[in-house]
Amino acid sequence: MYSGVFPIAPTTFDEDGALDLASQARVVDFLVDAGADGLCILANYSEQFALADDERDTLAQAMIDHVAGRVPVIVTTSHYSARVAAARSRRAQELGARMVMLMPPYHGATIRANEEGIVAFFRAVADAIAIPIVIQDAPVSGVALPTALLARLITEIDGIRLVKVEVPSAAAKLRELIARAGPALEGPFDGEEGITLLADLDAGATGTMPSGMIPDVLGRVVWLYLDGQRDEATALYARYLPLINYENRQCGLLATKALMKEGGIIISEAARAPTPALHRATRAGLVALARQRDPLVLRWAR
Amino acid sequence: MYSGVFPIAPTTFDEDGALDLASQARVVDFLVDAGADGLCILANYSEQFALADDERDTLAQAMIDHVAGRVPVIVTTSHYSARVAAARSRRAQELGARMVMLMPPYHGATIRANEEGIVAFFRAVADAIAIPIVIQDAPVSGVALPTALLARLITEIDGIRLVKVEVPSAAAKLRELIARAGPALEGPFDGEEGITLLADLDAGATGTMPSGMIPDVLGRVVWLYLDGQRDEATALYARYLPLINYENRQCGLLATKALMKEGGIIISEAARAPTPALHRATRAGLVALARQRDPLVLRWAR
Repeated sequence: MYSGVFPIAPTTFDEDGALDLASQARVVDFLVDAGADGLCILANYSEQFALADDERDTLAQAMIDHVAGRVPVIVTTSHYSARVAAARSRRAQELGARMVMLMPPYHGATIRANEEGIVAFFRAVADAIAIPIVIQDAPVSGVALPTALLARLITEIDGIRLVKVEVPSAAAKLRELIARAGPALEGPFDGEEGITLLADLDAGATGTMPSGMIPDVLGRVVWLYLDGQRDEATALYARYLPLINYENRQCGLLATKALMKEGGIIISEAARAPTPALHRATRAGLVALARQRDPLVLRWAR
Repeated sequence: MYSGVFPIAPTTFDEDGALDLASQARVVDFLVDAGADGLCILANYSEQFALADDERDTLAQAMIDHVAGRVPVIVTTSHYSARVAAARSRRAQELGARMVMLMPPYHGATIRANEEGIVAFFRAVADAIAIPIVIQDAPVSGVALPTALLARLITEIDGIRLVKVEVPSAAAKLRELIARAGPALEGPFDGEEGITLLADLDAGATGTMPSGMIPDVLGRVVWLYLDGQRDEATALYARYLPLINYENRQCGLLATKALMKEGGIIISEAARAPTPALHRATRAGLVALARQRDPLVLRWAR
């Protein structure tokens, strides 16, 4: 259950920034058809920070219903308030989520919790639900999560089973965390578009939560690796690394939607304002790297 | 309309973190009775970052209805998404807000807009409403707003009439901003619990948006100053500065609720988790400094 590729579904908007649920359903179908072992929705790559609460609910309901049990769905439910995060997580469970993912509490540049506050936060969420929790350790939160604290959270709170590490030196952190937390950590995960995937697999990651750009490829990399075929996994990863690197360093969350638009899966690739569009030249560079490799995202809807 | 003291109403919770609307109504009555020239709600000092969207709506409706036109109400409507910020602002206007206040778009430690994105953001909000906009220039956002950009926003976008400056060197920034923006800036405001109020008034501030702890005192300081009685304003401010300093440097947003609880205005002084409670010794220090000065917050409900 905690192995493989769990791509993040981008949130699809029309050119005016309204939700486009028809495109959203095609995104879900593409990710499932691409062999995703599960989907993650309402994550940072899904522009969760640009959504109102009622839109989060609409999206979660629409996507979980459309997945219809084909794969497990992870809903991101981060919020500064423990009470609101617990309520969001309970709601996700009601809608059929199989896991929730949360960053530690944060707001803006300056508002953070202390260590006891972080522990109490995750305990409040765990007490509110019966499904497993993924801790997301990401630079967006601006919260340093030492491995000692992560290990404490994993071992003290039953519901916490997975950690997605996407901070600098992710592989070293995963290795240390696996050693500290032991078997209570059932899912040590790679993230950040898979830009450190091979090193993270070497460190003991059992899965990855990348973008939805090339889940077909990244899932194959993970499963080859876990089946003991490290050389094949390494070669396949190396072939796609220029595209992953370009996504991670040049495009961010705009990359997946650009290729989904290019491949005819979605109507508009617009992110919500004030996130700026890709420069035309940057977009052209992305599409060129993708076309040379012809991933499913460009072929699926054709 | 843009002079005087516009205190921020803290959001009142019960010990479990649920909204306490009865205490909230008494907070409103206290602030109005204390001589507030207007109220600001759902600000950072109101723990806006710990609220769900439906709670924001409940609070805005309850407080604007309870004020019932006695003073103008400013609603903070910040959000990363221009679309969501515009919708929140429109909703505030519908509910009877007389102004809205927004920080520039931000999320967490890493997600920010570029300059054109910031201008388009405020334009989208201004296009959605007919009431004036206050730009909040605060460290929480993690966005540097150079005076050239603030002056551009004020002069290019009709609805932007006020700026609340609460970043380091606030007085110098206000002075420069007033010179650059000219008469289009109708309300250069001080903020941050009034910790720089005298210097900001010297720089040309016409009002302040402090906490709701001592609006009776800070309003009198502003009006004495604006009436040309600088010495009296300075002496009164100096008398309360130890309390303001203790609030600003030791207590943050917990101070107002502690004194409102001490004065019998509200039932619980709890902030929402994971914001930690004041240490007992810190709270005692605050109460002692307040008792020596006997501000209205300790007397109003007795």
